[in-house]
Amino acid sequence: MDYVNPSDVVESMVEAGAKKAKLPVHQLLVRGFLGAALLGFATTLAFTFELQTKIGMLGAIIFPVGFVMIILLGLELVTGSFALIPLAVMEKKATVSEMLRNFFWVIIGHIIGGIIYGLMIYVSITNFGQTFENPLTQKIIAVADVKTNGYATMGADGLLIVFIKAMLCNWMVTLGAVLAMVSKSTAGKIIAMWLPITTFFGQGFEHAVVNMFVIPTGILLGADVTIIDWWLWNQIPVTIGNLVSGFLFTGLALYFIHKISAKKKEQPQEVHERLKKVSF
Amino acid sequence: MDYVNPSDVVESMVEAGAKKAKLPVHQLLVRGFLGAALLGFATTLAFTFELQTKIGMLGAIIFPVGFVMIILLGLELVTGSFALIPLAVMEKKATVSEMLRNFFWVIIGHIIGGIIYGLMIYVSITNFGQTFENPLTQKIIAVADVKTNGYATMGADGLLIVFIKAMLCNWMVTLGAVLAMVSKSTAGKIIAMWLPITTFFGQGFEHAVVNMFVIPTGILLGADVTIIDWWLWNQIPVTIGNLVSGFLFTGLALYFIHKISAKKKEQPQEVHERLKKVSF
Amino acid sequence: MDYVNPSDVVESMVEAGAKKAKLPVHQLLVRGFLGAALLGFATTLAFTFELQTKIGMLGAIIFPVGFVMIILLGLELVTGSFALIPLAVMEKKATVSEMLRNFFWVIIGHIIGGIIYGLMIYVSITNFGQTFENPLTQKIIAVADVKTNGYATMGADGLLIVFIKAMLCNWMVTLGAVLAMVSKSTAGKIIAMWLPITTFFGQGFEHAVVNMFVIPTGILLGADVTIIDWWLWNQIPVTIGNLVSGFLFTGLALYFIHKISAKKKEQPQEVHERLKKVSF
Amino acid sequence: MDYVNPSDVVESMVEAGAKKAKLPVHQLLVRGFLGAALLGFATTLAFTFELQTKIGMLGAIIFPVGFVMIILLGLELVTGSFALIPLAVMEKKATVSEMLRNFFWVIIGHIIGGIIYGLMIYVSITNFGQTFENPLTQKIIAVADVKTNGYATMGADGLLIVFIKAMLCNWMVTLGAVLAMVSKSTAGKIIAMWLPITTFFGQGFEHAVVNMFVIPTGILLGADVTIIDWWLWNQIPVTIGNLVSGFLFTGLALYFIHKISAKKKEQPQEVHERLKKVSF
Amino acid sequence: MDYVNPSDVVESMVEAGAKKAKLPVHQLLVRGFLGAALLGFATTLAFTFELQTKIGMLGAIIFPVGFVMIILLGLELVTGSFALIPLAVMEKKATVSEMLRNFFWVIIGHIIGGIIYGLMIYVSITNFGQTFENPLTQKIIAVADVKTNGYATMGADGLLIVFIKAMLCNWMVTLGAVLAMVSKSTAGKIIAMWLPITTFFGQGFEHAVVNMFVIPTGILLGADVTIIDWWLWNQIPVTIGNLVSGFLFTGLALYFIHKISAKKKEQPQEVHERLKKVSF
Repeated sequence: MDYVNPSDVVESMVEAGAKKAKLPVHQLLVRGFLGAALLGFATTLAFTFELQTKIGMLGAIIFPVGFVMIILLGLELVTGSFALIPLAVMEKKATVSEMLRNFFWVIIGHIIGGIIYGLMIYVSITNFGQTFENPLTQKIIAVADVKTNGYATMGADGLLIVFIKAMLCNWMVTLGAVLAMVSKSTAGKIIAMWLPITTFFGQGFEHAVVNMFVIPTGILLGADVTIIDWWLWNQIPVTIGNLVSGFLFTGLALYFIHKISAKKKEQPQEVHERLKKVSF
Repeated sequence: MDYVNPSDVVESMVEAGAKKAKLPVHQLLVRGFLGAALLGFATTLAFTFELQTKIGMLGAIIFPVGFVMIILLGLELVTGSFALIPLAVMEKKATVSEMLRNFFWVIIGHIIGGIIYGLMIYVSITNFGQTFENPLTQKIIAVADVKTNGYATMGADGLLIVFIKAMLCNWMVTLGAVLAMVSKSTAGKIIAMWLPITTFFGQGFEHAVVNMFVIPTGILLGADVTIIDWWLWNQIPVTIGNLVSGFLFTGLALYFIHKISAKKKEQPQEVHERLKKVSF
Repeated sequence: MDYVNPSDVVESMVEAGAKKAKLPVHQLLVRGFLGAALLGFATTLAFTFELQTKIGMLGAIIFPVGFVMIILLGLELVTGSFALIPLAVMEKKATVSEMLRNFFWVIIGHIIGGIIYGLMIYVSITNFGQTFENPLTQKIIAVADVKTNGYATMGADGLLIVFIKAMLCNWMVTLGAVLAMVSKSTAGKIIAMWLPITTFFGQGFEHAVVNMFVIPTGILLGADVTIIDWWLWNQIPVTIGNLVSGFLFTGLALYFIHKISAKKKEQPQEVHERLKKVSF
Repeated sequence: MDYVNPSDVVESMVEAGAKKAKLPVHQLLVRGFLGAALLGFATTLAFTFELQTKIGMLGAIIFPVGFVMIILLGLELVTGSFALIPLAVMEKKATVSEMLRNFFWVIIGHIIGGIIYGLMIYVSITNFGQTFENPLTQKIIAVADVKTNGYATMGADGLLIVFIKAMLCNWMVTLGAVLAMVSKSTAGKIIAMWLPITTFFGQGFEHAVVNMFVIPTGILLGADVTIIDWWLWNQIPVTIGNLVSGFLFTGLALYFIHKISAKKKEQPQEVHERLKKVSF
Repeated sequence: MDYVNPSDVVESMVEAGAKKAKLPVHQLLVRGFLGAALLGFATTLAFTFELQTKIGMLGAIIFPVGFVMIILLGLELVTGSFALIPLAVMEKKATVSEMLRNFFWVIIGHIIGGIIYGLMIYVSITNFGQTFENPLTQKIIAVADVKTNGYATMGADGLLIVFIKAMLCNWMVTLGAVLAMVSKSTAGKIIAMWLPITTFFGQGFEHAVVNMFVIPTGILLGADVTIIDWWLWNQIPVTIGNLVSGFLFTGLALYFIHKISAKKKEQPQEVHERLKKVSF
């Protein structure tokens, strides 16, 4: 049947990571563009549901539509890859430079996708700048403000807090990427992925790719946030926090649980040495 | 299992597009008639849910019933085809004139279906013109007004805004048509299709076929909208916007991601030349 | 996988129609009895949900339980058969008289089932006639009144309105019967069937079999409705309206789309002559 | 695929009935114990949801968790067996005394399970008898009162009413047991079973096994109900009503529809004689 | 199809128990760490939903996300193992000391995971200790207080009450672990597991692993609870109560129902002697 055993899931993680690492630049750009745009669609949808009901969790329950479409269609999401490509590197199926190339160009694609969707939403909800009374306009501005100035006012503490929230976030997002592999059935994939994505969005954790849409769009709509604020107080620490927890709590932990044990029986020495060498 | 890999999905898109392009006119008319009528059913259902709860998103959550029935039963929806038939043309499995013939006759079928369902709803909710107090009557009138006069009052800006909203809409609708192919299981298809359709309806984007029901029915119920208003400020820019984004962001983008790369290995020269020649 | 292509679905429709046409009378009675009783259960359940929440759509979302059980257990529902048996007749797999025999005896079974469930509900909600304060009692009376006197006060217009609402209803109910065949998986069947049934119930369209329970039960509970009112202003026009749209918009339309085209290749002449001969 | 045709379902009903009839006493006791306890869990869960929202139907929507777990784990529920074991007797795959032995010992197990879960809930919600202010305490007391004294005050009418409500209940519960066999997939079974169980609980019908938990627990919590009241005004008439409708409307009806017809072709005489002989 | 018969489920329980008993210590630590952290994520998510809606059951409906991820990814949850490893011991596929080793190291992993997630949540919701006004902060403090001091004020009665609530809890949690094995399909597993987990959380029963996150985090946030209180009035009696009911009502009961009967036919003597010897 369609359930995939966790040890086979780790194999799929390595495979997926290797495949992603080999994609040419133009592929990374287009896939990253679509990935961020779809998360943008999901974000404005979730905000809409929250604004209509005053219940943030309902937004979180609908939000995974974007993530699910990205995974089902084989697009790129750099936060998900944080748990996959490093494993391919550890298994020597990709190089560190291939990994970094993926991260870089996908992020470029994400920024373009986030901003282009943001521009379209700007036209749509402000009637091309004529009105700023749409509740969604106010919501996006407020979120962009909290996600930057909110941390800036706390100084170094703010950086630590945003970093921790980014770790909490991507622990879940990477589990979403992994749980998609726990089934070979479309419905099984969708349901399994839904769980961690609702979990992170419902608690307001920090997701680098969502922020690549929501903060520049907030700026576009008039939020009192500079591009420096965006990157310094949010985008950089969030991306690093996403990377650390995605690699550590999901990629490495599942690799350790299901892969190294399996390998030990065959060639214990080799794997351990390989692990020591990996340094990023 | 039932999950279909994205690269195979693109094959299915081309196949489906080619098949649609070859259908005889009477088939296009009947399939288009049913397609628009089913979207009409879904629209009045969604409005009813919204009116009873004051929560528009609940309408959006129920709305995909119509789209799902259309796809499961193999009917025609021109907006979905915007992402499929052009690919068949690019693959030389259909001609541009076959594509335009499909678009034209399906749209004729849609208009007939939208208006006939509209007439039946008119009889049903006004008691054959005796009362206009049903909240659904007021809702349809209001929507028809906003979707035409709402843009007309903004002049050229209005045309741009409606065009952008149409692009946002059909990016999602075409993903619905594609996600139906991401599974060979009925439940998988239904769940996957549901996601983008709720996403577009929940945010009030502009869908040509929904409007082929809702605007003429609004006029029938007494909205202060002329047939010229309908086509000039809504139907024409929306249809073009639907076509542009459906082809660009879904059809071409997925083709580029999953198909061209695959082809490159075999016959790089040929495909690129073909792409250059396609001009519509 | 479990998804069934629309053209194969049409084959199943013909098969199902042929099988139903051959059932002996006692089978039609028992299956019709259970069919109407299960719709009765679903109707009181839906009314209960609506009464508790004041949101009619929630009743409509729960209502399909009855229809789904009928289809999964292979019982009879005459409204569903309106789209199936005529196709078997057109394919010469059943005769017109077999079709009419099915309709007649199933309707007799439905009336018995509706009234027996109605009697049991009467005992249950009025404490055997001691109290009429249960909100469900008032709801059933009100519905029976609106569904008869509501149309009678409008005279000929009323007949047209109820006829149109019956057409709108059975367009959906027959799609429910068809969508059950679009999957070979139980979950797929259930989800697919659910869609059109919620769609019709949520908008208050007129379903002959639901009315065979709700109107006589309303009379039993004291609604100011005569048996003549029941049949003249509701049951007869609704049954005819259900038949017309079920045959026309679902049976014939899907047959035309998926079957005749297929046949044309093989034996174009024969099918068209057959179609001309069918006259009911 | 996983959908099971109704005629095969009837075969499964006979098989299941035969298997249940052969189980040794200690098996019946343990399976009956777990069956009643799981229904107890589901009942307090449903009451909790209702108390928090004032919407009884939400309790009914969550209640099937208990029934589903019982069926998936192969435990015993006497009310479900009312539709199964008699068929095994009719098919000569079990004797009447084996059937009665199953009913008796499973009921003993149910009473023990209901009371033990009741004791645990008593400790849990009253803090071992120190407080009776938990809304769940008041709810259980009120339900136990209505389900006994509520009928007693109506005398003979009360017995008829409770009997009819018990018939309405087990028509649905036995359909739940049957619908579990309509799929070979776990998800399909769960969804199909859910439908009739929500239907009966949402309308307040009388289920013998739920009452084996809720009435003694109500007494334990201080309801003004004697053990005589419990059995005279509820448990005995409810059990008989459950048996009558479960056997008649589900067991016999489906057997008649899908089995006897099939048999007729082979050995019409034999089956009919067998049916005449069965007398319980 | 994917449904697994209950007797085969018991085989899987023994297998799973045996496999868990053989895992090396570092595996138990990492798997236990992730298990507790995921339950922590689910707990704060459920609290958030409850705080936003004032409906505790909505929290309970979302809570199983954590449990489901643990099981799908093959992580460790000591409460689930309470029903599995003892069966492996009874079948001589594991030793008592291996079982205790699993319990001990998994609990250590759980405590670390609960506290580390708690620290991250502390940083996240108090802005690193700057504010304690977040409703989630107050909720966690209140829950930690009720779960310790709430019982302490009742003295010995409190210990009995918490013990009974722990029994009620793990009867359900272990059924969750078992129901995951009732399907070989991912969607089937998820749906089946969901049922008992919602059931226990919705009624406020006591789960050792949830408490390993919620009580120390409450202390961290300022709850007036000592580490002694935590262990004396909650963690120790809850863990024992979880063990007793998990082993008794789920492990042993299902083993008795589906396994011993099967064995009896082959080697009745042996199994019974084995059962007598087991003493823990």
